[in-house]
Amino acid sequence: MLMSPFVQAQTSNYKVVFDMSSRDSINQQAIVREIGLITGASPDAKLEVVIYGQGLELAIKNRSVQQPAVEKIIASNKATFKVCAMTMKRNNIDSTQLVPGIEIVPDGIYEIISKQQAGWGYIKVGH
Amino acid sequence: MLMSPFVQAQTSNYKVVFDMSSRDSINQQAIVREIGLITGASPDAKLEVVIYGQGLELAIKNRSVQQPAVEKIIASNKATFKVCAMTMKRNNIDSTQLVPGIEIVPDGIYEIISKQQAGWGYIKVGH
Amino acid sequence: MLMSPFVQAQTSNYKVVFDMSSRDSINQQAIVREIGLITGASPDAKLEVVIYGQGLELAIKNRSVQQPAVEKIIASNKATFKVCAMTMKRNNIDSTQLVPGIEIVPDGIYEIISKQQAGWGYIKVGH
Repeated sequence: MLMSPFVQAQTSNYKVVFDMSSRDSINQQAIVREIGLITGASPDAKLEVVIYGQGLELAIKNRSVQQPAVEKIIASNKATFKVCAMTMKRNNIDSTQLVPGIEIVPDGIYEIISKQQAGWGYIKVGH
Repeated sequence: MLMSPFVQAQTSNYKVVFDMSSRDSINQQAIVREIGLITGASPDAKLEVVIYGQGLELAIKNRSVQQPAVEKIIASNKATFKVCAMTMKRNNIDSTQLVPGIEIVPDGIYEIISKQQAGWGYIKVGH
Repeated sequence: MLMSPFVQAQTSNYKVVFDMSSRDSINQQAIVREIGLITGASPDAKLEVVIYGQGLELAIKNRSVQQPAVEKIIASNKATFKVCAMTMKRNNIDSTQLVPGIEIVPDGIYEIISKQQAGWGYIKVGH
Protein backbone atom coordinates (compact mmCIF):
# COMPACT_ATOMS: atom_id res chain seq x y z
CA MET A 1 0.00 0.00 0.00
CA LEU A 2 1.25 3.42 -0.93
CA MET A 3 0.65 6.51 1.12
CA SER A 4 0.19 9.66 -0.92
CA PRO A 5 3.41 11.67 -0.76
CA PHE A 6 3.47 14.71 1.49
CA VAL A 7 4.30 17.52 -0.86
CA GLN A 8 6.68 19.94 0.81
CA ALA A 9 6.97 22.89 -1.51
CA GLN A 10 3.98 25.08 -2.13
CA THR A 11 3.91 27.95 -4.56
CA SER A 12 4.43 31.50 -3.41
CA ASN A 13 0.73 32.33 -3.81
CA TYR A 14 0.03 30.85 -0.41
CA LYS A 15 -1.80 33.80 1.11
CA VAL A 16 -4.55 33.27 3.63
CA VAL A 17 -6.59 35.47 5.90
CA PHE A 18 -8.03 33.49 8.79
CA ASP A 19 -11.34 34.69 10.23
CA MET A 20 -11.20 34.09 13.97
CA SER A 21 -14.39 34.98 15.79
CA SER A 22 -14.48 31.98 18.09
CA ARG A 23 -13.58 31.65 21.75
CA ASP A 24 -13.57 27.88 21.42
CA SER A 25 -10.24 26.48 22.62
CA ILE A 26 -10.16 23.82 19.88
CA ASN A 27 -10.37 26.58 17.27
CA GLN A 28 -7.73 28.69 18.99
CA GLN A 29 -5.40 25.70 19.16
CA ALA A 30 -6.17 24.80 15.54
CA ILE A 31 -5.13 28.16 14.15
CA VAL A 32 -1.80 28.01 15.96
CA ARG A 33 -1.17 24.47 14.74
CA GLU A 34 -2.16 25.28 11.17
CA ILE A 35 0.20 28.25 11.02
CA GLY A 36 3.02 25.98 12.16
CA LEU A 37 2.22 23.33 9.56
CA ILE A 38 1.79 25.78 6.70
CA THR A 39 4.94 27.76 7.37
CA GLY A 40 6.87 24.55 7.91
CA ALA A 41 6.08 23.47 4.36
CA SER A 42 5.82 26.93 2.78
CA PRO A 43 8.14 29.39 4.56
CA ASP A 44 7.07 32.18 2.19
CA ALA A 45 3.36 31.84 2.95
CA LYS A 46 1.62 35.07 3.91
CA LEU A 47 -0.76 34.41 6.77
CA GLU A 48 -2.92 36.81 8.71
CA VAL A 49 -5.29 36.08 11.55
CA VAL A 50 -8.10 38.60 12.07
CA ILE A 51 -9.59 38.43 15.55
CA TYR A 52 -13.01 39.90 16.28
CA GLY A 53 -16.27 39.17 18.04
CA GLN A 54 -16.12 36.12 20.28
CA GLY A 55 -12.50 35.54 19.29
CA LEU A 56 -11.18 38.48 21.31
CA GLU A 57 -9.81 36.43 24.20
CA LEU A 58 -7.12 35.00 21.92
CA ALA A 59 -5.66 38.51 21.78
CA ILE A 60 -5.72 39.36 25.48
CA LYS A 61 -2.57 39.15 27.55
CA ASN A 62 -2.63 36.74 30.48
CA ARG A 63 -5.99 35.45 29.35
CA SER A 64 -5.22 33.83 26.02
CA VAL A 65 -4.38 30.15 26.47
CA GLN A 66 -2.36 30.37 23.25
CA GLN A 67 -0.34 33.45 24.28
CA PRO A 68 3.11 31.77 24.19
CA ALA A 69 2.39 30.22 20.79
CA VAL A 70 1.03 33.47 19.37
CA GLU A 71 4.01 35.49 20.63
CA LYS A 72 6.38 32.96 19.09
CA ILE A 73 4.59 33.08 15.72
CA ILE A 74 4.71 36.87 15.68
CA ALA A 75 8.37 36.99 16.77
CA SER A 76 9.35 34.66 13.94
CA ASN A 77 7.25 36.55 11.37
CA LYS A 78 5.24 33.46 10.50
CA ALA A 79 1.94 35.31 10.60
CA THR A 80 0.41 38.60 11.65
CA PHE A 81 -2.41 38.88 14.15
CA LYS A 82 -4.84 41.77 13.89
CA VAL A 83 -7.64 42.52 16.30
CA CYS A 84 -10.76 44.59 15.65
CA ALA A 85 -10.88 47.93 17.49
CA MET A 86 -14.67 47.89 17.58
CA THR A 87 -14.62 44.53 19.35
CA MET A 88 -12.04 45.87 21.81
CA LYS A 89 -14.09 48.97 22.53
CA ARG A 90 -17.27 46.98 23.11
CA ASN A 91 -15.40 44.81 25.60
CA ASN A 92 -13.51 47.66 27.28
CA ILE A 93 -10.14 46.30 26.26
CA ASP A 94 -7.37 48.77 25.45
CA SER A 95 -4.14 48.26 23.59
CA THR A 96 -2.07 47.75 26.77
CA GLN A 97 -4.02 44.58 27.43
CA LEU A 98 -3.13 42.89 24.16
CA VAL A 99 -0.64 40.09 23.65
CA PRO A 100 2.52 41.95 22.54
CA GLY A 101 2.85 42.16 18.77
CA ILE A 102 -0.83 41.91 17.97
CA GLU A 103 -1.89 44.82 15.78
CA ILE A 104 -5.14 46.76 15.90
CA VAL A 105 -7.35 47.36 12.87
CA PRO A 106 -10.37 49.68 12.97
CA ASP A 107 -12.78 47.04 11.64
CA GLY A 108 -12.05 43.33 11.54
CA ILE A 109 -14.60 42.49 8.88
CA TYR A 110 -13.32 45.21 6.59
CA GLU A 111 -9.78 43.94 7.09
CA ILE A 112 -10.90 40.45 6.03
CA ILE A 113 -12.77 41.52 2.92
CA SER A 114 -9.92 43.83 1.89
CA LYS A 115 -7.60 40.85 1.92
CA GLN A 116 -10.12 38.83 -0.09
CA GLN A 117 -10.30 41.62 -2.65
CA ALA A 118 -6.51 41.59 -2.84
CA GLY A 119 -6.64 37.92 -3.85
CA TRP A 120 -5.92 36.29 -0.52
CA GLY A 121 -7.64 33.03 0.31
CA TYR A 122 -10.18 33.06 3.13
CA ILE A 123 -10.61 30.45 5.81
CA LYS A 124 -13.20 30.71 8.55
CA VAL A 125 -11.78 29.04 11.62
CA GLY A 126 -14.43 26.79 13.06
CA HIS A 127 -15.42 23.23 13.70
CA MET B 1 -1.06 55.33 26.35
CA LEU B 2 -2.55 55.86 22.92
CA MET B 3 -5.52 53.96 21.64
CA SER B 4 -5.48 53.29 17.91
CA PRO B 5 -7.85 55.75 16.25
CA PHE B 6 -11.23 54.45 15.16
CA VAL B 7 -11.31 55.16 11.48
CA GLN B 8 -14.76 56.33 10.46
CA ALA B 9 -14.72 56.48 6.71
CA GLN B 10 -14.37 53.30 4.73
CA THR B 11 -14.09 53.14 0.99
CA SER B 12 -17.13 52.48 -1.15
CA ASN B 13 -16.01 48.93 -1.91
CA TYR B 14 -17.46 47.72 1.38
CA LYS B 15 -19.59 44.89 0.01
CA VAL B 16 -20.17 41.78 2.08
CA VAL B 17 -22.37 38.75 1.81
CA PHE B 18 -22.91 37.15 5.22
CA ASP B 19 -23.48 33.39 5.28
CA MET B 20 -26.00 32.72 8.04
CA SER B 21 -26.70 29.03 8.56
CA SER B 22 -26.75 29.09 12.34
CA ARG B 23 -29.63 29.06 14.79
CA ASP B 24 -27.28 30.11 17.59
CA SER B 25 -28.59 33.25 19.28
CA ILE B 26 -25.07 34.70 19.71
CA ASN B 27 -24.59 34.50 15.95
CA GLN B 28 -27.99 35.98 15.21
CA GLN B 29 -27.30 38.86 17.58
CA ALA B 30 -23.81 39.31 16.13
CA ILE B 31 -25.01 39.81 12.57
CA VAL B 32 -27.48 42.48 13.65
CA ARG B 33 -24.82 44.26 15.70
CA GLU B 34 -22.25 44.07 12.91
CA ILE B 35 -24.63 45.57 10.36
CA GLY B 36 -25.23 48.47 12.74
CA LEU B 37 -21.54 49.07 13.30
CA ILE B 38 -20.59 48.79 9.63
CA THR B 39 -23.33 51.06 8.34
CA GLY B 40 -22.65 53.53 11.14
CA ALA B 41 -19.10 53.99 9.88
CA SER B 42 -19.75 53.29 6.19
CA PRO B 43 -23.26 54.38 5.21
CA ASP B 44 -22.66 53.30 1.61
CA ALA B 45 -21.72 49.73 2.49
CA LYS B 46 -23.59 47.05 0.59
CA LEU B 47 -24.52 44.24 2.95
CA GLU B 48 -26.53 41.11 2.30
CA VAL B 49 -27.41 38.34 4.72
CA VAL B 50 -28.19 34.97 3.16
CA ILE B 51 -30.17 32.72 5.47
CA TYR B 52 -30.32 28.97 4.90
CA GLY B 53 -30.07 25.65 6.68
CA GLN B 54 -30.10 25.96 10.47
CA GLY B 55 -30.34 29.74 10.17
CA LEU B 56 -33.95 29.72 9.01
CA GLU B 57 -35.45 30.76 12.34
CA LEU B 58 -33.93 34.23 11.97
CA ALA B 59 -36.28 34.75 9.02
CA ILE B 60 -39.52 33.52 10.61
CA LYS B 61 -42.08 35.98 11.91
CA ASN B 62 -42.92 35.76 15.60
CA ARG B 63 -40.15 33.23 16.07
CA SER B 64 -37.03 35.23 15.29
CA VAL B 65 -35.62 36.82 18.44
CA GLN B 66 -34.06 39.49 16.23
CA GLN B 67 -37.25 40.32 14.33
CA PRO B 68 -37.50 43.99 15.47
CA ALA B 69 -33.84 44.59 14.67
CA VAL B 70 -34.09 42.87 11.28
CA GLU B 71 -37.22 44.82 10.31
CA LYS B 72 -35.50 48.07 11.28
CA ILE B 73 -32.42 47.24 9.21
CA ILE B 74 -34.53 46.42 6.18
CA ALA B 75 -36.72 49.52 6.58
CA SER B 76 -33.66 51.74 6.69
CA ASN B 77 -32.03 49.99 3.71
CA LYS B 78 -28.95 49.10 5.72
CA ALA B 79 -28.86 45.52 4.45
CA THR B 80 -30.92 43.02 2.53
CA PHE B 81 -31.94 39.66 3.97
CA LYS B 82 -32.49 36.73 1.62
CA VAL B 83 -33.72 33.30 2.61
CA CYS B 84 -33.26 30.06 0.72
CA ALA B 85 -36.45 28.65 -0.83
CA MET B 86 -35.13 25.09 -0.58
CA THR B 87 -34.62 25.51 3.16
CA MET B 88 -38.13 26.95 3.49
CA LYS B 89 -39.65 24.07 1.55
CA ARG B 90 -37.84 21.45 3.61
CA ASN B 91 -39.19 23.09 6.78
CA ASN B 92 -42.71 23.70 5.45
CA ILE B 93 -42.40 27.46 5.76
CA ASP B 94 -44.13 29.64 3.18
CA SER B 95 -43.62 33.29 2.32
CA THR B 96 -46.46 34.51 4.58
CA GLN B 97 -44.52 33.29 7.58
CA LEU B 98 -41.43 35.39 6.90
CA VAL B 99 -40.37 38.54 8.70
CA PRO B 100 -41.70 41.32 6.42
CA GLY B 101 -39.14 42.55 3.94
CA ILE B 102 -37.06 39.39 3.82
CA GLU B 103 -36.66 38.25 0.22
CA ILE B 104 -36.67 34.69 -1.09
CA VAL B 105 -33.94 33.28 -3.32
CA PRO B 106 -34.22 29.86 -4.97
CA ASP B 107 -30.90 28.60 -3.60
CA GLY B 108 -29.02 30.26 -0.75
CA ILE B 109 -25.64 28.76 -1.59
CA TYR B 110 -25.91 29.88 -5.19
CA GLU B 111 -26.84 33.37 -4.04
CA ILE B 112 -23.71 33.46 -1.87
CA ILE B 113 -21.29 32.27 -4.53
CA SER B 114 -22.84 34.62 -7.10
CA LYS B 115 -22.03 37.51 -4.82
CA GLN B 116 -18.49 36.17 -4.34
CA GLN B 117 -18.06 35.98 -8.10
CA ALA B 118 -19.27 39.58 -8.35
CA GLY B 119 -16.42 40.63 -6.05
CA TRP B 120 -18.26 40.86 -2.76
CA GLY B 121 -16.45 39.84 0.39
CA TYR B 122 -17.67 36.74 2.20
CA ILE B 123 -18.07 36.29 5.93
CA LYS B 124 -19.34 33.09 7.49
CA VAL B 125 -21.21 34.05 10.62
CA GLY B 126 -20.09 31.74 13.39
CA HIS B 127 -18.26 31.57 16.66
CA MET C 1 -50.54 34.06 -1.96
CA LEU C 2 -47.77 33.26 -4.37
CA MET C 3 -44.74 31.24 -3.44
CA SER C 4 -41.55 32.31 -5.14
CA PRO C 5 -40.89 29.86 -7.97
CA PHE C 6 -38.18 27.28 -7.43
CA VAL C 7 -35.77 27.95 -10.21
CA GLN C 8 -34.46 24.69 -11.60
CA ALA C 9 -31.71 25.62 -13.99
CA GLN C 10 -28.60 27.28 -12.70
CA THR C 11 -25.82 28.59 -14.87
CA SER C 12 -22.77 26.50 -15.50
CA ASN C 13 -20.62 28.63 -13.19
CA TYR C 14 -21.91 26.73 -10.18
CA LYS C 15 -18.57 25.79 -8.67
CA VAL C 16 -18.16 25.48 -4.93
CA VAL C 17 -15.49 24.28 -2.59
CA PHE C 18 -16.94 23.28 0.77
CA ASP C 19 -14.70 23.69 3.81
CA MET C 20 -15.48 20.79 6.12
CA SER C 21 -13.58 20.90 9.40
CA SER C 22 -16.43 19.86 11.65
CA ARG C 23 -17.22 16.56 13.30
CA ASP C 24 -20.73 17.75 14.07
CA SER C 25 -23.29 15.31 12.69
CA ILE C 26 -25.67 18.11 11.65
CA ASN C 27 -22.92 19.60 9.50
CA GLN C 28 -21.97 16.24 8.02
CA GLN C 29 -25.60 15.55 7.15
CA ALA C 30 -26.01 19.08 5.76
CA ILE C 31 -23.18 18.75 3.26
CA VAL C 32 -24.60 15.50 1.90
CA ARG C 33 -28.07 17.01 1.61
CA GLU C 34 -26.81 20.19 -0.04
CA ILE C 35 -24.89 18.24 -2.68
CA GLY C 36 -28.07 16.33 -3.51
CA LEU C 37 -30.14 19.50 -3.80
CA ILE C 38 -27.57 21.40 -5.85
CA THR C 39 -26.89 18.61 -8.32
CA GLY C 40 -30.60 17.90 -8.59
CA ALA C 41 -31.18 21.43 -9.89
CA SER C 42 -27.78 21.95 -11.56
CA PRO C 43 -26.40 18.65 -12.86
CA ASP C 44 -23.31 20.42 -14.21
CA ALA C 45 -22.33 21.97 -10.90
CA LYS C 46 -18.75 21.37 -9.85
CA LEU C 47 -18.61 20.59 -6.15
CA GLU C 48 -15.68 19.68 -3.98
CA VAL C 49 -15.62 18.92 -0.28
CA VAL C 50 -12.30 19.45 1.48
CA ILE C 51 -12.07 17.57 4.75
CA TYR C 52 -9.50 18.51 7.38
CA GLY C 53 -9.11 19.11 11.09
CA GLN C 54 -12.09 18.01 13.15
CA GLY C 55 -13.88 16.93 9.97
CA LEU C 56 -11.69 13.87 9.46
CA GLU C 57 -14.20 11.33 10.72
CA LEU C 58 -16.42 11.99 7.68
CA ALA C 59 -13.66 10.42 5.57
CA ILE C 60 -13.00 7.31 7.66
CA LYS C 61 -14.42 3.96 6.62
CA ASN C 62 -16.78 2.28 9.08
CA ARG C 63 -16.73 5.37 11.25
CA SER C 64 -18.37 7.98 9.05
CA VAL C 65 -22.12 8.08 9.66
CA GLN C 66 -22.51 9.44 6.14
CA GLN C 67 -20.42 6.75 4.45
CA PRO C 68 -23.20 5.30 2.24
CA ALA C 69 -24.26 8.77 1.12
CA VAL C 70 -20.68 9.85 0.42
CA GLU C 71 -19.91 6.70 -1.57
CA LYS C 72 -23.06 7.22 -3.63
CA ILE C 73 -22.16 10.85 -4.36
CA ILE C 74 -18.67 9.88 -5.47
CA ALA C 75 -19.92 6.96 -7.58
CA SER C 76 -22.33 9.23 -9.43
CA ASN C 77 -19.70 11.96 -9.91
CA LYS C 78 -21.82 14.54 -8.13
CA ALA C 79 -18.91 15.83 -6.07
CA THR C 80 -15.34 15.03 -5.15
CA PHE C 81 -14.17 14.56 -1.59
CA LYS C 82 -10.59 15.39 -0.68
CA VAL C 83 -8.99 14.85 2.68
CA CYS C 84 -5.92 16.61 4.09
CA ALA C 85 -2.85 14.37 4.41
CA MET C 86 -1.52 16.42 7.32
CA THR C 87 -4.73 15.83 9.24
CA MET C 88 -4.52 12.10 8.46
CA LYS C 89 -0.92 11.91 9.63
CA ARG C 90 -1.66 13.71 12.89
CA ASN C 91 -4.45 11.23 13.57
CA ASN C 92 -2.54 8.14 12.42
CA ILE C 93 -4.97 7.41 9.63
CA ASP C 94 -3.63 5.89 6.41
CA SER C 95 -5.21 5.69 2.99
CA THR C 96 -6.55 2.15 3.51
CA GLN C 97 -8.82 3.50 6.22
CA LEU C 98 -10.58 6.02 4.01
CA VAL C 99 -14.06 5.75 2.56
CA PRO C 100 -13.43 4.41 -0.97
CA GLY C 101 -13.18 7.13 -3.58
CA ILE C 102 -12.08 9.91 -1.24
CA GLU C 103 -8.89 11.49 -2.54
CA ILE C 104 -5.92 12.72 -0.54
CA VAL C 105 -4.45 16.21 -0.90
CA PRO C 106 -1.22 17.23 0.83
CA ASP C 107 -2.72 20.27 2.52
CA GLY C 108 -6.44 20.87 2.86
CA ILE C 109 -6.20 24.61 3.39
CA TYR C 110 -4.03 25.03 0.32
CA GLU C 111 -6.52 22.99 -1.70
CA ILE C 112 -9.31 25.32 -0.59
CA ILE C 113 -7.52 28.56 -1.36
CA SER C 114 -6.35 27.20 -4.72
CA LYS C 115 -9.95 26.63 -5.68
CA GLN C 116 -10.85 30.13 -4.47
CA GLN C 117 -8.07 31.57 -6.62
CA ALA C 118 -9.45 29.62 -9.58
CA GLY C 119 -12.79 31.41 -9.12
CA TRP C 120 -14.70 28.77 -7.22
CA GLY C 121 -17.16 29.89 -4.58
CA TYR C 122 -16.35 29.07 -0.97
CA ILE C 123 -18.74 27.83 1.67
CA LYS C 124 -17.68 27.05 5.22
CA VAL C 125 -19.87 24.24 6.44
CA GLY C 126 -21.08 25.13 9.92
CA HIS C 127 -24.08 26.07 11.97
